[in-house]
Amino acid sequence: MVRVAIIGASGYTGVESIEIILRHPSAKLTYLTALPEECGHVADLFGQLRGRLDMPVEPLDLDKLAQTADVAMCCLPHKVSMAFVPKLLNAGVKVIDFSADYRIKDVAVYEKYYEPHTDRENLAHAVYGLPELFRGEIKKATLIANPGCYPTGASLALAPLLANKLIKTRGIVVSSVTGVSGGGKNPSPNFHFPNMNENLYPYGVGVHRHMPEMEQVASAVAGESVELLFQPHVGPFDRGILSSVYCDPTGDISAKQVQDLFRDFYKDERFVQVLAKPPVVKHVAKSNYCHVFPTVAKGKVVVFSAIDNLIKGASGQAIQNMNLLFNLPEAMGLE
Amino acid sequence: MVRVAIIGASGYTGVESIEIILRHPSAKLTYLTALPEECGHVADLFGQLRGRLDMPVEPLDLDKLAQTADVAMCCLPHKVSMAFVPKLLNAGVKVIDFSADYRIKDVAVYEKYYEPHTDRENLAHAVYGLPELFRGEIKKATLIANPGCYPTGASLALAPLLANKLIKTRGIVVSSVTGVSGGGKNPSPNFHFPNMNENLYPYGVGVHRHMPEMEQVASAVAGESVELLFQPHVGPFDRGILSSVYCDPTGDISAKQVQDLFRDFYKDERFVQVLAKPPVVKHVAKSNYCHVFPTVAKGKVVVFSAIDNLIKGASGQAIQNMNLLFNLPEAMGLE
Amino acid sequence: MVRVAIIGASGYTGVESIEIILRHPSAKLTYLTALPEECGHVADLFGQLRGRLDMPVEPLDLDKLAQTADVAMCCLPHKVSMAFVPKLLNAGVKVIDFSADYRIKDVAVYEKYYEPHTDRENLAHAVYGLPELFRGEIKKATLIANPGCYPTGASLALAPLLANKLIKTRGIVVSSVTGVSGGGKNPSPNFHFPNMNENLYPYGVGVHRHMPEMEQVASAVAGESVELLFQPHVGPFDRGILSSVYCDPTGDISAKQVQDLFRDFYKDERFVQVLAKPPVVKHVAKSNYCHVFPTVAKGKVVVFSAIDNLIKGASGQAIQNMNLLFNLPEAMGLE
Amino acid sequence: MVRVAIIGASGYTGVESIEIILRHPSAKLTYLTALPEECGHVADLFGQLRGRLDMPVEPLDLDKLAQTADVAMCCLPHKVSMAFVPKLLNAGVKVIDFSADYRIKDVAVYEKYYEPHTDRENLAHAVYGLPELFRGEIKKATLIANPGCYPTGASLALAPLLANKLIKTRGIVVSSVTGVSGGGKNPSPNFHFPNMNENLYPYGVGVHRHMPEMEQVASAVAGESVELLFQPHVGPFDRGILSSVYCDPTGDISAKQVQDLFRDFYKDERFVQVLAKPPVVKHVAKSNYCHVFPTVAKGKVVVFSAIDNLIKGASGQAIQNMNLLFNLPEAMGLE
Repeated sequence: MVRVAIIGASGYTGVESIEIILRHPSAKLTYLTALPEECGHVADLFGQLRGRLDMPVEPLDLDKLAQTADVAMCCLPHKVSMAFVPKLLNAGVKVIDFSADYRIKDVAVYEKYYEPHTDRENLAHAVYGLPELFRGEIKKATLIANPGCYPTGASLALAPLLANKLIKTRGIVVSSVTGVSGGGKNPSPNFHFPNMNENLYPYGVGVHRHMPEMEQVASAVAGESVELLFQPHVGPFDRGILSSVYCDPTGDISAKQVQDLFRDFYKDERFVQVLAKPPVVKHVAKSNYCHVFPTVAKGKVVVFSAIDNLIKGASGQAIQNMNLLFNLPEAMGLE
Repeated sequence: MVRVAIIGASGYTGVESIEIILRHPSAKLTYLTALPEECGHVADLFGQLRGRLDMPVEPLDLDKLAQTADVAMCCLPHKVSMAFVPKLLNAGVKVIDFSADYRIKDVAVYEKYYEPHTDRENLAHAVYGLPELFRGEIKKATLIANPGCYPTGASLALAPLLANKLIKTRGIVVSSVTGVSGGGKNPSPNFHFPNMNENLYPYGVGVHRHMPEMEQVASAVAGESVELLFQPHVGPFDRGILSSVYCDPTGDISAKQVQDLFRDFYKDERFVQVLAKPPVVKHVAKSNYCHVFPTVAKGKVVVFSAIDNLIKGASGQAIQNMNLLFNLPEAMGLE
Repeated sequence: MVRVAIIGASGYTGVESIEIILRHPSAKLTYLTALPEECGHVADLFGQLRGRLDMPVEPLDLDKLAQTADVAMCCLPHKVSMAFVPKLLNAGVKVIDFSADYRIKDVAVYEKYYEPHTDRENLAHAVYGLPELFRGEIKKATLIANPGCYPTGASLALAPLLANKLIKTRGIVVSSVTGVSGGGKNPSPNFHFPNMNENLYPYGVGVHRHMPEMEQVASAVAGESVELLFQPHVGPFDRGILSSVYCDPTGDISAKQVQDLFRDFYKDERFVQVLAKPPVVKHVAKSNYCHVFPTVAKGKVVVFSAIDNLIKGASGQAIQNMNLLFNLPEAMGLE
Repeated sequence: MVRVAIIGASGYTGVESIEIILRHPSAKLTYLTALPEECGHVADLFGQLRGRLDMPVEPLDLDKLAQTADVAMCCLPHKVSMAFVPKLLNAGVKVIDFSADYRIKDVAVYEKYYEPHTDRENLAHAVYGLPELFRGEIKKATLIANPGCYPTGASLALAPLLANKLIKTRGIVVSSVTGVSGGGKNPSPNFHFPNMNENLYPYGVGVHRHMPEMEQVASAVAGESVELLFQPHVGPFDRGILSSVYCDPTGDISAKQVQDLFRDFYKDERFVQVLAKPPVVKHVAKSNYCHVFPTVAKGKVVVFSAIDNLIKGASGQAIQNMNLLFNLPEAMGLE
């Protein structure tokens, strides 16, 4: 039984992780932490857990962590995360970090989009936790950088094409729409219900922090530098990301050929389903699945992918990584 | 041309008033005010006005008000309102006040539900601005207390019954569901999109401030003390209030009799439509109409009423009052 | 391992039952049936099952049913159900019937609200499957009438009061709002997205078929005839029912007393959580829990209950009943 | 006073046209027609018109049309439209046609995407009714092909760039999300509330009928053949289209240069507002405005445009065209 601590349990990825572990036959929650002002009974923070989980959310105590947990799900925001992760690792637990702090290997890129990096030592050995692409390294890791939500969907859409040199490495457009839970739990005017409801809009034009993360994964898969334009939008629904990816083929290719390629590339992957028609966000909501549909239209290779941003894009993928780390069946607790 | 100032133009009732006056053939906006930190070009506050209204929102200057306006729509919250209304009146303008400060005539009741009252003088001559019930006094007023959103819908549902002594004055239940704009523009956890979306819940059980306001109107119409239980709920939509009113009849009465009674009672009222089937909120959204359906079921008289909380429940009703104040056709700008 | 067949698997309660059984450690799906025109691979009917369940949905064959299943979840509509249930029972399986056909013991009442009853024999021994109130009989049943969604929430709100004679048995009002999935999967103008979105309305005034079902349960619990007015509404969300119940107390009673009563009444019930504040629908969505909050306001006893209409109001409750039928832990697969 | 008939008044563009004309100071509704089975009092078809418009919707009678109307808004679907438009024109009225039947000048293209064309004669002189681009011809027309909703938003986003040869005429991607009203009033499984709510998905990959319409307009503006990929998506909201347009520049160009270009290009256009930040769909809902934001990102020229699909994308633009046809101020009734 893997003993799991959740560091920063008071946000959406925290409660999502709790829900999954409650159903996991070989893992149990042993420790939930949050900032002091957010502590209390877990059902007071998340009413949906009333009667289902009787545990406190407490301020972090590293000794208690060391004694109670085998792995820490670190659900802290970037910058805060890299201040805590070294301590968590020193406490002897494996760490699955949900922030961006250990995702981007090139410190200069990280610092351009985020902050000065304060933990290069651990960054060096962190493993990017996208199991479908990096399963081997994940199994041996002690620190896993759990991927961003948008990069998960985009990378799964691009990988078969880039790995097979079927698309050009310049001019790629990833146009995505996320549900509002992607913006986190803090109230703001943009996400105030009467402003967000019946609305949809683009943001972060040319500057979103998930763009370099996508480029890093894409370049790793392609074996050469890939540049892309990532354009996020937010729409009036809770959960899910639909990514529409537009690329230029390197040569003649048919819709059937890209379909066959994807089916072959993902034939052993339970959580990536290659569809014969466009995906719908609702079919992956509340699940760890990615639905992907590749085709060719008007001379472009077009790929659509849909995931739940909080599950395959965060907490579900973290459990998938945890299963790999602890030699459990990869899909355990996620079906 | 009635010259209109909007005091507190930065909220939802402010912009709603602006939109209506932009379409009003005999009124024009001359002055928009807000707190200093919310001032600026009106289209920077409300993007939907881009290209439609080229005006600043400015801090309130009473001299400027006196020079530019015939009437002030005072869209301030309670307590703030009674600090400003005396000054607005002194500036020589008529005032239509959107807050609760001048609605409740019994100071003890007001102070039980709200705050110590600081402007009893003006309270004494303020007129409750529900035109269908108090048209005569409204025409002669200088200060109008624009009704609350819930009381507007509930009062129009109850008035024909109470005026005709057809229901008991005890045991009435008003069970209402409002859209989220009723909670105002300030972000809060409850109204954060991922919390409010796909949700519905009751609040303010037994203590909502609109309950004594409803009782005051009901008692005035009945000519005797009426007590009722008002239970509000909030649901995942922008606009509208559906009130379901359950009452005990004083004697035998049929569905047809209450239908006929309502049709007769409201036969000259353009903005109250008596339906032959239950109302739907969406049909009154963005309009100043109240749809009402009275019937009898299982021994209860049941009345449903639907309004737009921001129009008939606030800004539209204010314009209706303004039209009465200035001897304009009552429906002008509201159709 | 309980072998489960789902008869009428193509609707919302069918897929919901499938999802729960997929997570159930001691039950497995062995047979899925639907009308011929709705048959095919289960993932073609429900895209969310792609990669998760590889089974056909087939036309019903009673021999196959007899050979493959221990229990049939009969997710057919009323009237159709009573044509099939005798055959299912004759095939030697236990039956949990989702329709209204075996819920109402008084045939005259059934026939007033529904159709001529064609299977009085099985009606006589069917057991009403609300475990919190009728657990003993459920365990011994071969045919369970799974309760209606509205009656489940209303009955759990009323039972502690009626069992203890704390409210009058006349004048009760149950005012409920359901999400749209309660209306089933068939497209109709009312539930067309642009008509239902941003909308809310009452329906079935005085005539809803769940009213006599509620009265039957309430009378059974009270030990005397109970009459109530049930008023349903539909709101713009997928899942959940919020019931607001207004009753007249038989004597003086405080909010604390009703709170204590409910906590005691449900102290051993995992799936009924008595809250200290009003429930919110979203907290019970996708779960088998009922959240209930009883209080006293303006002389009325007021109880709010929230359930997921498809889970505690249908498929989850069916699995709860199945667990009882087969001597499994009652909450298995439902946590 | 322009006398307006609406042919096919029972759909969403019909009622939207009715609403606008009700507010129009120089136009009045004189005749509403629909299929016999959809006829009746207009408020029985559209409950929101109760008390606001007292008119029948009748089967079409060409003599009555000739006597009562100056212009017919023809809100019929394609194919049906070209069967009726010749008759409407013969009745001596001007026609603004909402269908696709008179939009595409190349009959071969029309027939590839739609049907055999049965009215080439009128097609030859029909004018494409996008006022910002073709105002001169519109004023002189007798038959106006009112543009499609998607092409309106896309064309306004592309025109300044193409007219100035700033982008390449190949490789353009128009990635759009529409609200559900774009799918019309007929119920279908896709638009059944529980299926569409909390959902978002692409459709019509590579084959949407608005793609050749966009190419025709783009080519006309560019003065050379333009090819583009149009990819529509549908999201869970009533109204609005957000188009995200990705293009390759022909040479070096800065964000400021494209901003300046757009501001200059649209400087006299009331209904096109060039923003300094990305548009939000909600700000154009219920209005005839198009909000557009052009910029440069990662080597691409990116333009976002937002319109209300039923107003600027249909009925509002039709009224704008009507105003031009009858020498009324272009914005009359639309502000």
